[in-house]
Amino acid sequence: MTRRFVVIGQQATASPDFSLLDLPGTSGRLDVLLRCVRAALLVSHGLRRDTIVYLVLQGGPDAPRVLRLDGNDIRFVRPDERSLALLVQKALGRELPPAERNAFVTIRPGLARATGDLEAVLADLGPHAVTAYVLEEDGRDVRALALADRDVVVFVGDNHGFDPATRARIELLGATAVGIGPISLHADDAITVVCNELDRRRATREATA
Amino acid sequence: MTRRFVVIGQQATASPDFSLLDLPGTSGRLDVLLRCVRAALLVSHGLRRDTIVYLVLQGGPDAPRVLRLDGNDIRFVRPDERSLALLVQKALGRELPPAERNAFVTIRPGLARATGDLEAVLADLGPHAVTAYVLEEDGRDVRALALADRDVVVFVGDNHGFDPATRARIELLGATAVGIGPISLHADDAITVVCNELDRRRATREATA
Repeated sequence: MTRRFVVIGQQATASPDFSLLDLPGTSGRLDVLLRCVRAALLVSHGLRRDTIVYLVLQGGPDAPRVLRLDGNDIRFVRPDERSLALLVQKALGRELPPAERNAFVTIRPGLARATGDLEAVLADLGPHAVTAYVLEEDGRDVRALALADRDVVVFVGDNHGFDPATRARIELLGATAVGIGPISLHADDAITVVCNELDRRRATREATA
Repeated sequence: MTRRFVVIGQQATASPDFSLLDLPGTSGRLDVLLRCVRAALLVSHGLRRDTIVYLVLQGGPDAPRVLRLDGNDIRFVRPDERSLALLVQKALGRELPPAERNAFVTIRPGLARATGDLEAVLADLGPHAVTAYVLEEDGRDVRALALADRDVVVFVGDNHGFDPATRARIELLGATAVGIGPISLHADDAITVVCNELDRRRATREATA
């Protein structure tokens, strides 16, 4: 069972020309997305091997681009924001062989980049049966959901939520709106809460299997 | 009802002479504590006004020192790690009038510093009735706890856990060990999960009041 988190940055830059000295001010709030990477992928003493994070970067002259970080293969991911920013900056600046739109090209193990938008993510999901969720403030409480006992994909908006086209595309997928409690949280905290619920469900399944 | 999070950094520096270019490598992993500040204090579009965070800094030549960030009064707290590091660096570098050990001196609204260790935090709690918790991997599940309907203080270790003296002091307080699920998480994620549970309990109380 794989968990996928798709974080959509409406202004987050797809170009490497941002400053590490002012990440929020020069990268279209890429810092929000970096914190989502940490929350989804990193746990004490390691990585969530069952988790893939997609960063959909819709800002800047190189947009749209998607970065894919696969917890099963990626190494040398540190939790501090500057290290994550450097990782992404290098991934965005790397010259890659030409590829079709929406096709992921591997940069190093566990790290790949596609030219494309949300469609690149959907193409990457392939024909696998996945259950889609979208984090929404007024969604049904994650604790009350019959979370799928199979691959899940969770769509996460940035600090601006979703643009109308993206929202329509996610709705077309039949994604279930899921909420995480009474207070509106930052995207990374929302991911943490969802991961905790998924961890608990899996532990319960394994204990009763 | 006030929530207090006491984050204890065994090596986290109490001096301002760390480098923003390598926070993990030069600050005794102050980055871990900064992420705890974000998780405890910041929500979408604002701060948790009912939350106070103490950073107990036990590393470097100026140790021990405690920084206190009070969500009710503090302003201009941004979520990115570099901004939080700058805030802490300035707070540690500021010349302050002499004060007794364990006494907090205000730096600016919502931000204060004490010379001292855990005792400074305990003195600051004063005679108020508080219920103490300590985050432990093998603690009782936070969801199963009859969480106090009054002021709470939650002790949080860094990436090294607690040193024996600190652990003994926390045990003396009668702190209840609390766990947050089947997977060992980073301290900031653990705080996020605890905050989410406290938010839910409060919402339930308010709905039935």
